[in-house]
Formats: sequence, C-alpha cells, structure tokens
Amino acid sequence: MSTESDCPFCGIVAGTIPSTKVYEDDKTFAFMDIAPASDGHLLVVPKAHAKNLLEIPAEDLAAVAQTGQRLAQRIMATLDADGVNLINSCGEAAWQTVFHFHLHVIPRYAGRDGLTLPWVPTPGDADAIAATGARLASD
Amino acid sequence: MSTESDCPFCGIVAGTIPSTKVYEDDKTFAFMDIAPASDGHLLVVPKAHAKNLLEIPAEDLAAVAQTGQRLAQRIMATLDADGVNLINSCGEAAWQTVFHFHLHVIPRYAGRDGLTLPWVPTPGDADAIAATGARLASD
Ligand SMILES: [Zn+2]
Ligand SMILES: [Zn+2]
Repeated sequence: MSTESDCPFCGIVAGTIPSTKVYEDDKTFAFMDIAPASDGHLLVVPKAHAKNLLEIPAEDLAAVAQTGQRLAQRIMATLDADGVNLINSCGEAAWQTVFHFHLHVIPRYAGRDGLTLPWVPTPGDADAIAATGARLASD
Repeated sequence: MSTESDCPFCGIVAGTIPSTKVYEDDKTFAFMDIAPASDGHLLVVPKAHAKNLLEIPAEDLAAVAQTGQRLAQRIMATLDADGVNLINSCGEAAWQTVFHFHLHVIPRYAGRDGLTLPWVPTPGDADAIAATGARLASD
C-alpha cells in the first residue's frame, strides 16, 4: 500500500490520525468530514495514496465511487435526507485542499441546508460549445 | 439496454436527440453540457437508463467514473484548465433536474471561472459529527 508520511488522509487510513470511521473495505476508507457542509457529510478515500483524479488508478477510482454509492444509499435510509451530492475536487483551482484523492458525499436537506449551486445554469453559446467539444473529442 | 422513451439522455445516447458527443464506449456516453458552468463542461452518462446514484448498477457507476477520469485527463491536456470538478446530483433536493444518472465534468480556470464553492467550510460540532457517524456506521 503506497502511503505518504506527511499526508493527513494516509494518517487517517493508518489510524495514526483519529477520525470517525464510517466504512472500510480492502480498497477504500470512509470517515466523517470535520467541517461538514451538512449533517452526515463524509469523505471516501482510496487506502493507497493518490494525489488526485488525474493520478488515482482506475480500479481504485471505481472502488471509491462504489463506496460513495453504498454510503449515499445508507444516508438516504438512515438520515432524514432528501438527496445527496458527490463532489470531487482536482487541483487547487477546483478547491482541492488535501492532496490525497477524496470523494465528498454530502447529504442534502430540501430547503434547510443552505447549500448553493456553484454556478447558475445559463444556456451557452452553441458554436463555442461545439468547438470545445471537437477539441476534446479528437484527442 | 434499458431505455425510457421520455428521457432526454436516453434520446441523446440513441441519437434521436442531437448532442455534441465527446466520447463513447460500450457502457458510457459523454457529451457537452448545453448550459455550461465553464468552457468544456461535459456530462458522462451510462448508456443504460438509471434514474440516479441510488439506482445505477455498481458496474455502470464504475464505468462512468472511469470515463469521467479519462475526460478530466483530456481536459487538462487539451484545454488551458487548472483543475476539474466532478459533481453528481442525486434527487431534486441535490439540484438533479434530468432523471438519468449523469456525472458533471467541469474544467476549472483559476480566478477566471466565477464558480463558487456550494458551502463555506467551517469546523463542525465534534460530538454531533461523531453521533451522525455512528448512525451511518452501524447500519
Ligand atoms: Zn495520502
Ligand atoms: Zn434515460
């Protein structure tokens, strides 16, 4: 298992840094966020250190997503939640602050959680969208 | 392949509704969002209809996450992006508006994309967090 000695989430996985553990299997570990966006906000991480979405092995990513799903189902069954958001931040520009891949699992409570959508959906310029799409498709 | 006749994303996968396709494999389909949060914002969906995170088969979820990763890597290589967010919304209370599972892949541009974090990270009450964690862990 690859770990980094100065990584707080490697420390949580190893148990040298305390956390409120919610779930663990051979590839993933889930624990409560200590600065929660809402009641029940938790993080799922791969046990093996990977900096971010660009670097995590595909197999670990799949395992993290599946643990996120399992815990979303548990949140809906256990807490009085109305929905769930999954969020991953890759890079400082995307709000990543701990550089060990983590998936936020955030319970939502209709009209009473104060969260705001990070953007206002507005129809885009169709030609610009098609041009960017072509650049992404051709690589 | 399960489809729903009145589902816009099933229509996009089938080609009966036009889209700017970016990627396709046996389980997943990716296309540009028409109301983008930033330049390059795209959606990854499973080809088989599934309403949301609670209902998508685990294998399709893994495939969607892996396609999201592949396209995040392509975004970083192709566009002048500084980071990427992955977002899934499960339920109306979590901002889901189309009820065919989709993963948002959102390129980020440091200081010039106008996106705002949906919550302000603030230390939570440790006892309340531990209590909710215990409820989630014991199910
Ligand atoms: Zn680590
Ligand atoms: Zn559908």
